[in-house]
Amino acid sequence: MTQQQRVALDARFRQPQPAVPPTLEELRDGFAGLMASLGVPSGFRADPTTLGPRPALHVQPEEGGRPGTLLYFHGGSYVMGSPTTALTLTANLVVRTGVSAFSVDYRLAPEHPYPAGPDDALAAYRALLDDGVDPATVVLAGDSAGGGLSVATCLAARRAGLPTPAAVVAFSAGLDLTRTGRSMTTKAALDPFFTREGFDQTAALYLAGQDPATELLSPATLADLTDFPPLLLQVGTNEMLLDDSTRLAARAVEAGVDVTLDVVAGVPHVFQAFTGLLDEAGQALDRAALFITQHLPAPGA
Amino acid sequence: MTQQQRVALDARFRQPQPAVPPTLEELRDGFAGLMASLGVPSGFRADPTTLGPRPALHVQPEEGGRPGTLLYFHGGSYVMGSPTTALTLTANLVVRTGVSAFSVDYRLAPEHPYPAGPDDALAAYRALLDDGVDPATVVLAGDSAGGGLSVATCLAARRAGLPTPAAVVAFSAGLDLTRTGRSMTTKAALDPFFTREGFDQTAALYLAGQDPATELLSPATLADLTDFPPLLLQVGTNEMLLDDSTRLAARAVEAGVDVTLDVVAGVPHVFQAFTGLLDEAGQALDRAALFITQHLPAPGA
Repeated sequence: MTQQQRVALDARFRQPQPAVPPTLEELRDGFAGLMASLGVPSGFRADPTTLGPRPALHVQPEEGGRPGTLLYFHGGSYVMGSPTTALTLTANLVVRTGVSAFSVDYRLAPEHPYPAGPDDALAAYRALLDDGVDPATVVLAGDSAGGGLSVATCLAARRAGLPTPAAVVAFSAGLDLTRTGRSMTTKAALDPFFTREGFDQTAALYLAGQDPATELLSPATLADLTDFPPLLLQVGTNEMLLDDSTRLAARAVEAGVDVTLDVVAGVPHVFQAFTGLLDEAGQALDRAALFITQHLPAPGA
Repeated sequence: MTQQQRVALDARFRQPQPAVPPTLEELRDGFAGLMASLGVPSGFRADPTTLGPRPALHVQPEEGGRPGTLLYFHGGSYVMGSPTTALTLTANLVVRTGVSAFSVDYRLAPEHPYPAGPDDALAAYRALLDDGVDPATVVLAGDSAGGGLSVATCLAARRAGLPTPAAVVAFSAGLDLTRTGRSMTTKAALDPFFTREGFDQTAALYLAGQDPATELLSPATLADLTDFPPLLLQVGTNEMLLDDSTRLAARAVEAGVDVTLDVVAGVPHVFQAFTGLLDEAGQALDRAALFITQHLPAPGA
């Protein structure tokens, strides 16, 4: 990231902390506005549909598609966001891979605390398989809380006796609701988006009093990753959530599975969304696209 | 890796340990024979040249070249190997990136113990810069001991007051001559190529009594990676050297630099060389090629 890009990014996103914590409605509106301000690539179409019990957005390349299905989970701390807010990320993956995606509109807290979100995510995966989709042609992907869901859904699928997908991709994933990563402290001054108070606020809504120390909520420290499918973790060094990815990667290495930990210097949370501002965004998306296509059947296979 | 590929690999490389340790000449001949048995890709030419004080092999794409220079260091535990033994790896990177390479014939132990090899590697890098090559267009790369040299050369360049290269790529790198990685023990039964006795034999020749606990010999535990350029580490889970890469990656994360740790399940040391046997080889080379080109100036820039 150049100094000029850093200044532009800071001017755009590093807001003074308000004296009064924002309301849920303000959080949701602010997040939707921020994400809507990011450009989407050309070359795709997005159509509302349903997948299992929930609405979803079907994102397809306009031409040159290839076999496979991305099952995408948006970010937003489990209390904000929708397939629309993540459209720039989903569409960029679709256009760069040629693979179609379903982006799941899973239920949010506080109206629907844990485990509603993971239940919806697993139901969406199960719906794909029930439709006859080969799990070896499915890649789970997501950003932030949705990155956590992509990992948790794979773990939950195994618990439910379902076959695991071809691969899992997580951008700046939230993987530890116990918040014990050192980066929670060491990166606090560098992270333009998060504060510990903000994390605590959204986690309280999501957990509704439940214990965060479980495999699905805190896989970075608690998951059994034996036989986990190939895993790509991308994360920036300016993230309080950095150690969520580094610790899950270490567990994956320990479990002897395929894992790529892709750490990008000097960039913030879900930097892949800022394709217009940061060179690192498109480059990281290209690396993710290569990882995804390498783990799917070749066209014509 | 399929079961069939594993059986083929084991049949080819997992040899019974000889009753008498091999002589140096037997080691060198065996290594050269093994590497010569691996196919090279089409689409390149290789010409003998010199770079600084040492011979080198200039490997160029036959067509469609792009700007940049790979400076490649072959493997062979600092006592074996040459640009010829690494030609399959160097040529695969050249063909997949379009970037030309110089593969350095650095001096080997025991005739020339440490620091002759790193001195030659640094001299080769210095020779490129003296020829007017922009360091921002140079990527250091290597496999095994040569992966260690690619990291060490970058560290030595900084010590010598030279600018650092655009990026560093290390395949199954040897990054800890103190051999303190847990994988030295935990992966011993899985590693088809190495034994602790074999490591000790070659390290004794290379060190010639010198202390291995230095930054250049054991960067995985001792290097200061502040401001290190973007680093790609690829390694297989069936390697005694696995922890050399995981520990250097952790140090790089700690230093806040760009690092990709790319761990491939179920494959052995320098699996990238086995493009004819393992699907994982070509896929890893493609990922490395993307990493390399992303850190070099675009064609026409």
